Amino acid sequence: MKAIGFNAPFNLEDGNQFQEIEFNIPNPTRNQLLIKVQSISVNPVDTKQRILPVNHAPRILGFDAAGIVEQVGEDVTMFEPGDYVFYSGSPNQHGSNEEYQLIEEELVAKAPSNLKPEQAASLPLTGLTASETLFDVFQISHDPEKNKGKSLLIINGAGGVGSIATQIAKAHGLKVITTASREETIEWTKSMGADIVINHKEDLKTQLEHHDINEVDYIFCTFDTDLYYEKMIELIKPLGHIATIVAFKEKQDLNLLKPNSVNFTHEFMFARPVNRTNDMIKHHEYLKDISERVERGQYHHTTTKVINGLTTETLYQAHQILESNTMIGKLVINVEK
Amino acid sequence: MKAIGFNAPFNLEDGNQFQEIEFNIPNPTRNQLLIKVQSISVNPVDTKQRILPVNHAPRILGFDAAGIVEQVGEDVTMFEPGDYVFYSGSPNQHGSNEEYQLIEEELVAKAPSNLKPEQAASLPLTGLTASETLFDVFQISHDPEKNKGKSLLIINGAGGVGSIATQIAKAHGLKVITTASREETIEWTKSMGADIVINHKEDLKTQLEHHDINEVDYIFCTFDTDLYYEKMIELIKPLGHIATIVAFKEKQDLNLLKPNSVNFTHEFMFARPVNRTNDMIKHHEYLKDISERVERGQYHHTTTKVINGLTTETLYQAHQILESNTMIGKLVINVEK
Repeated sequence: MKAIGFNAPFNLEDGNQFQEIEFNIPNPTRNQLLIKVQSISVNPVDTKQRILPVNHAPRILGFDAAGIVEQVGEDVTMFEPGDYVFYSGSPNQHGSNEEYQLIEEELVAKAPSNLKPEQAASLPLTGLTASETLFDVFQISHDPEKNKGKSLLIINGAGGVGSIATQIAKAHGLKVITTASREETIEWTKSMGADIVINHKEDLKTQLEHHDINEVDYIFCTFDTDLYYEKMIELIKPLGHIATIVAFKEKQDLNLLKPNSVNFTHEFMFARPVNRTNDMIKHHEYLKDISERVERGQYHHTTTKVINGLTTETLYQAHQILESNTMIGKLVINVEK
Repeated sequence: MKAIGFNAPFNLEDGNQFQEIEFNIPNPTRNQLLIKVQSISVNPVDTKQRILPVNHAPRILGFDAAGIVEQVGEDVTMFEPGDYVFYSGSPNQHGSNEEYQLIEEELVAKAPSNLKPEQAASLPLTGLTASETLFDVFQISHDPEKNKGKSLLIINGAGGVGSIATQIAKAHGLKVITTASREETIEWTKSMGADIVINHKEDLKTQLEHHDINEVDYIFCTFDTDLYYEKMIELIKPLGHIATIVAFKEKQDLNLLKPNSVNFTHEFMFARPVNRTNDMIKHHEYLKDISERVERGQYHHTTTKVINGLTTETLYQAHQILESNTMIGKLVINVEK
């Protein structure tokens, strides 16, 4: 089988160093599934992991897949061959940039039956990140009634995580304010359900005040945390909660959190699988919930760009698009041409 | 009436700049109570506030009191003259270092009837800080059964906040590990209910491993956050929560929170009254709960040192003792000689 990987970290300016690699199709054991990967999606985390030191070459990236269960390990209880599934995976294993992938069943759920693989592959990583941030970090209620009157500001509403986070938050009763600056991104984030869209190139506080909003309960940063760190603290309610998924470039003054007793979290969706926590099954549960809500028409996939054929060229092209920071929604690659 | 205040920030090395000031006894209006203060306690926050710029001289510190309601404002519903009460207050109002104090009823509760004022005054600030940290920040359950198996590490278990936090956490089913280094502090924190005491002068990780503990669910830092920032991150469970009440001296690397998706909070108990949040009544509720549990014998006061007579000399002496960082439990001053 074919996989696309690389042997050492590289910057895109240094040329395409992805390589096509041949592996034997592996056998699933214990709680593993062997998946025939149909579609993968490329996320900002792929571009960040591409420049990290490689411990076990070749490194196979890819943190989103939709595909079919081919074989199951002896301890598998939730799936059987033929199931149509989706999942994100974990950075300490082979990723989804390959024709067949092994994955533990706790990290997998049945994909929405009303979505094609190229649509379903847009959801796992972003849906898990948004679900953990909303339910585990912010601890919003699963009952929309109990979240009434609560507000969430998402920095960069039109990105992959922002897009699904907006949908999940809206479905759970929150008022959602997003940021966007271009006509297309403003339209997109509104179509995801944003109640209010403000321009991140202008002063956030002033714009919120125009909407009679002085402070928000939750802020979720999906872009340039250093730039927004102090602004977010200025906008958060006393005892409110800020989360980011974007690493800092600089050290920060944590005393700024004190006057309003603010909670800050550096959300990292892979913390559960990497640490093999005893609640890893949450990944299955969150994906199952998303899948069922997509089937009911409550959530929508966020695929906006599809490339056919997983090759060193298409993967390099996808990384270029991701690094341009202009992506709206999600970019998906179908494994087959 | 007499109050003890000062006109400009000062260090103790510059001599005693507390002054005795005469005020007219004020009249309570709206939801205010006029309290005849019987006992006050001195906290680390008093020494920190003493060196801040004074906006409205004279500044009257004091964030713990037990006393008797003398008069009530026209909107007061929960108290009547003669009630024996305790409270912490707020740094944007006159503090408790005075014979009579005005305080809003939302911040007050009936004091435990089985405690003398010099005992009850040990509890409000520390009890509120510990309650907010455990229930609002860590979001532990009020049902001890649901907290079973969860562990809390308290850095500096024998201080005022550590002492009551240990009691509250134990009463709610947590396993409590505290740090202490002297024979007296080790004895004291054990008497508060600590299951395990480790020495903060030795490596925390190694000591915890001796007790078969690799990681804890919650860490509450009540001493030198800069010193413990990285150590705490090393010891916290994935998706765990760290809180501090001690301001940082330096900027810190927030990316360290990322690999385990760690939550960090700079708890500040005055965030509710200073911001006049619409849930300020939580202060009343937390104090009421503490009071009732003291009456049932479940919690115990933490007064270890009593000075009689609130004067410029006794207050200066109390600040000296607090700044020595050797205090076990709480220091209380009775207003009368």
